[in-house]
This record gives sequence, C-alpha cells and structure tokens, in this order.
Amino acid sequence: MLPWLGSADPGRVHTEGRIARAALEEAREQVAAFLGTRPRQVVFTSGATEAINAAVFGAVTRWLDAGNRGPRIVLAGVEHSAVREASERHAELRWLRVDGVGQIVPEEVIEAVSEAPTALAHCQLANHEIGTVQRVAEVAAACREAGVLLHVDAAAGAGSLPIRFDELGADFLSVSAPKLGGPRGCGALLVRRGLRVPALIVGGMQERARRAGLEDVAAAVGFGATAAQLAGGALEDESARAAALLRKLRRTALSIDGVTPYGPDDESSRLPGLLCVGVAGVEAEPVLIGLDRAGVSAHSGSSCSSESLEPSPVLEAIGADADHSLRFTAGWSTSEEDVRLASDALPEVIAKLRALGAG
Amino acid sequence: MLPWLGSADPGRVHTEGRIARAALEEAREQVAAFLGTRPRQVVFTSGATEAINAAVFGAVTRWLDAGNRGPRIVLAGVEHSAVREASERHAELRWLRVDGVGQIVPEEVIEAVSEAPTALAHCQLANHEIGTVQRVAEVAAACREAGVLLHVDAAAGAGSLPIRFDELGADFLSVSAPKLGGPRGCGALLVRRGLRVPALIVGGMQERARRAGLEDVAAAVGFGATAAQLAGGALEDESARAAALLRKLRRTALSIDGVTPYGPDDESSRLPGLLCVGVAGVEAEPVLIGLDRAGVSAHSGSSCSSESLEPSPVLEAIGADADHSLRFTAGWSTSEEDVRLASDALPEVIAKLRALGAG
Repeated sequence: MLPWLGSADPGRVHTEGRIARAALEEAREQVAAFLGTRPRQVVFTSGATEAINAAVFGAVTRWLDAGNRGPRIVLAGVEHSAVREASERHAELRWLRVDGVGQIVPEEVIEAVSEAPTALAHCQLANHEIGTVQRVAEVAAACREAGVLLHVDAAAGAGSLPIRFDELGADFLSVSAPKLGGPRGCGALLVRRGLRVPALIVGGMQERARRAGLEDVAAAVGFGATAAQLAGGALEDESARAAALLRKLRRTALSIDGVTPYGPDDESSRLPGLLCVGVAGVEAEPVLIGLDRAGVSAHSGSSCSSESLEPSPVLEAIGADADHSLRFTAGWSTSEEDVRLASDALPEVIAKLRALGAG
Repeated sequence: MLPWLGSADPGRVHTEGRIARAALEEAREQVAAFLGTRPRQVVFTSGATEAINAAVFGAVTRWLDAGNRGPRIVLAGVEHSAVREASERHAELRWLRVDGVGQIVPEEVIEAVSEAPTALAHCQLANHEIGTVQRVAEVAAACREAGVLLHVDAAAGAGSLPIRFDELGADFLSVSAPKLGGPRGCGALLVRRGLRVPALIVGGMQERARRAGLEDVAAAVGFGATAAQLAGGALEDESARAAALLRKLRRTALSIDGVTPYGPDDESSRLPGLLCVGVAGVEAEPVLIGLDRAGVSAHSGSSCSSESLEPSPVLEAIGADADHSLRFTAGWSTSEEDVRLASDALPEVIAKLRALGAG
C-alpha cells in the first residue's frame, strides 16, 4: 500500500493518473477473482457498512422508480445492525424467525417472500456474533424463484468461507476489507451482472457511476493484495489455524462451571475464528476488564461493552442473555501465546468474580 | 499513519480499543482546531463527496420530518458536481446566477431564499475549477437572517483560506483530507452545534451516531496531522509558495497568443494554487497529451479529459468554452522545477498544435 498513499487521481488522463488507474483495476481484478465474479461487478466502498446502506438504498429506490409503493424488506433479527437500520429507514420490515442457534430457515424465507410483493431480502453469509453459517445458497435459490432481490452481508463470513458470487445467484453482496485482514476504510459491494441501481453517494463518475468520490487507491491495493493471498490458499490455511486455536479455548471455556456455548455445536456450521459463550452468574463487563488486565482483548454483546445503549439484538433473537455473554475471535494476527493467555486468564477471572459475588 | 494501519476497533472497551479511540479523538481535536470549531462538531467521513451527500440528505430529511413538503435547494451552477447531483436527487433546485468570474452574488442569494420556503442553500468556499473565492461570510449572514440552512463546500478552499466554522455561522461544512495534502479516503462534515440531522450511513453508533462504520483510524490520524501542520503556519507558507509558483506560469501562459485567464484577476479573490485558462484554436485534449509527454500533469474541463461525458458545467456557468480550457494546480509537492517544465512546455505544445491545425 505504501507507494500508493500519495497516488494521483485515477480519473485523470495524464500518466500519473493512468498508473493509479492500472493499480486500482488490478486490485478490482484480485477482489473479483477471490469472490468469484467479474471485475465489473465490484464497486469499491469505504467499508461494509456503506456497501450495505448502498444495497438497501439501491434496491428500494429501484422498487419505487418502477412505480411500486410501500417497499417491504424481509430479514432476520440476527442480521448486522447496518442491515437492520438501513432497512428500517426505508421499508416495512418482515422479520424472519431463526432457530435456537441463530440459523435462518430457508422455508421461512420462501413463505415470507411469497406473502406480499417484496423489494429486498437479506441473508448474511455467517453471523458476526455467534458464528452461525447460514444456508445462503438455499435462500438465494428461493429468492430467485420468487423474483425477489437478495442481499448477502458477507462481512463476517468472507474471510473463512469461499464465495462464488456469480454462482450463488444473489443480487448484492457486501464485504469488508479489514474483516479479511486488509485495510480499514475499505470494502466492496458486488452487484449482479445486468442489475442497475442508483448510487447512494453521487457527484462523480467513479466506479462506473456507482459510487462517487476520489478513489482510495492505497486501500484498494491493500484490499486486492489481501484478496489475492486469501484466494491463493490463505483462506483455507488461516481458517484451519483459527479453528485449531479456538478449539483449545472452547474446551477450556466450556469446562468452567456455568459456561455454555452459543451457536451451532457442529464445527462446519460455524465460523472457525469465533467463539461466543454465556457465563452464568457473572456480568460480562468485569470479565472483560479482568481479561484486558491479563492482556486479552475480548468482547461481549452486553450494552456496556460498546457504544450502543442496547444489548445485542442478535443474542436476543436466539433467546440468549447478552449481558452475560463473551466473544473471542482469532484472526491472522492471533498467536498460540494469545490463546494460552486467554485460556489461563478466563477461569481465574470468572472464579475471582464469583468469589466476590459480582453477579 | 503507519502505526495505525492495523489499529484496533476504537469502539471496544479493551486497552487496544481505548488506545485507538485516543488517537482518533486527538485527530478530531486537530481537525476541529484547524477549522475553528469544537471536536464534537467534526464527523469523519470517507471524503468530501460523502460529506456533501450526507449534508444534503440530512437537511432534506430534517425538512420532510418537520412536516414540510417539496424540499427546495438554492445553489449556483459553479458548485461541484457532488453538490449539484446530491441536491438534484432530493429537491427542486433554484439556480443562482453568477458573475463573469464565477462569483456567487450575496444579493441574489437573499432574493432566492426569500422567494419560497427553502430546505438548504449551498455556497462553496472557493471554486475548484477556476479558483474564485466566494463571499461566503455574506451568504452565511443572509441565510441565518432568512432562517435557511447553509452548506459550505470547502473542499477546494480549505487548504488555502483560513476557516473559522463557528464564527462563519454556516450549518454544514465539507472538507476533503487529500485536497489538503492528507490521506485519500478521508474527509469531514462539520455540523453546527445544536443541529440534529439524520445520518446518511446508518447501522452503528460511531461518530456519535452521525456516521456508521468502523473508523479508519490511520486515515483520521493522517488528516489530523495535516490539519495540525496547516494550523501551525503551513497554510500561509504553502499558499504564498503556491501563489509565487503559479504567478510565473500565469505570466508565461498569458503571454501566449489567444490564451486568456478564467476567474478573477485580483489575486486575493482567487485560490493561490490554481490557474485556469482558455486556449483559442486548440482543443485541450492534445495539449494535455503534449504536456504529459513533457512530464507535466495538467487537467481540463473538457469532457475527454475525465470520466464524465459532459464538459464542465462550471465553465459553462461563466460562459467559457470547456473544451478549450486548461487547469494547472500547485500544491505542497509541486517544485520550482515542475513549474519550469510546464512554463517551457506550454508555449511549445500550443505552437506545435497550431502549426498542425489541431483546432
């Protein structure tokens, strides 16, 4: 990325501009190859949140422009807040029930999209808080059958699960570069071949008029390099490595009294790099503080652990208690030593808090 | 920026998250100090284009939420395409006439905002193509008097003209980090104290719920460092240096037969780092190619020189011929040698093309 931090505007015809353009288009090819689509389907954005907002805005505006009224969107409570809030703003929502491990049931999607005219359905690739892998191919088939546009939020899943966008049959797919180990401030929206939707951010012809604004060439180059590494075997290697690391931590965590796992038991139905558990009798907040003191950065769906004022709606959707939840993730930068630290600290921190009666 | 490229999520409560948060907030203080406002008024965005789209969306949605109908926006044809296109999408437009050097006339704004209820008015700080400095303080006073919200697109002017947002009395102000010499993929929207408008990009509580999405800490840190340098004297130094560099090029250019300047003659009424001229009898495109061969990256308002299919509406607004226009800019990275190259090449390239009859 470094040589591109001061790159020229790739929209210019001079040599410096054309060099920047070539780098941007090479990055687009790398991202497209990784996600199983053509470079023209890739719209670079400032991240997955913008991509999601753009997909919802595009689908709803297309719906209204075609003379339809009252857009309706079908989605589950386990979708990311960006999916839920962008949809809420524009449409009447039809909520999908999920099963006890947070999985969207394709039959329920078929029912929902056939009840009433629908502008858009959402189905995440995998859940970002409990790791549940969704049955997205079945949902995509159901949506195509019903003639309903489908958006797939792949932000949480894209680094662990192979994606073939063109074969999947979805209409939109959102990815985040930092979630893959790439740079912050970067992501992409994939748009199905032949589908034309208005842009969320207008005012320039960049990204084939689908996203205005001076391109961040350095970020795109970093995203492209990340995609090329993942496509070249790193996705499988890193997933296997993350699964091995978290298997140990999971064993330790579940051996503690009153600690229960959230999400599927079956390894193939959950993300390899994510572990979410409930801890009976101890609030998440002091556990996170104790872990942090031991050098472990963990997270929780509790309201105190983030800027949000509400506990996690994802955990609520599966009937779990967010304020007693803990989340651990392992990525390319997580070491054996990190996991050892966490495995040592977790039982001690919980025991100490229980002894203090910090429930 | 480098130590922050792999920074943690500043929304997390663990130590790594809090370190990232501190860096982000220091950057916000630097940008706020540079622009004469409080840190809380600064919303980091992916660039000026997003900031402009967010200002227009926010103002129009606020207008409709208050029970008003048919939003109306007042603006001049010399505004950037992001301002024009974002406004067009949402509102009925009332176009302001400009004078022969592209200056917005405050009396015309007063007339326009008093004709009919108005959701928003725009007045750029300075023009991005011909460098005209606008009488923005007078326009801001007129808008406050009329109770009409004002957005100032300061993308082109912010690196050359001092800005005191709180004193200016505008409601929104957009800036671009790369236009200041800072990183790509970064900018800010300033929002007046006490003004609440809905966010364009939703789905997270980042930026005090005014812009969702994982923060790009490295870019914000780079933007902050740029702002601190400019506030510490670099703005005046660089403006003086750019003015001196372009004074030479301007003299050379205007000594060529049939080359005429666009924008104000008076140096204090135009940006120091920008020179826009018309060249009679030669299309811009081959001139740019000739300059590029000589190692000079220049630009034009002609349709061929960019991704746009239309010639520059800015030049159209002042009655200039975009297809025969050339634009030179000097910034912090422009050297004496660059200007010497351009001054040598320009007369030669034009003479050669005229000899070939490439009009």
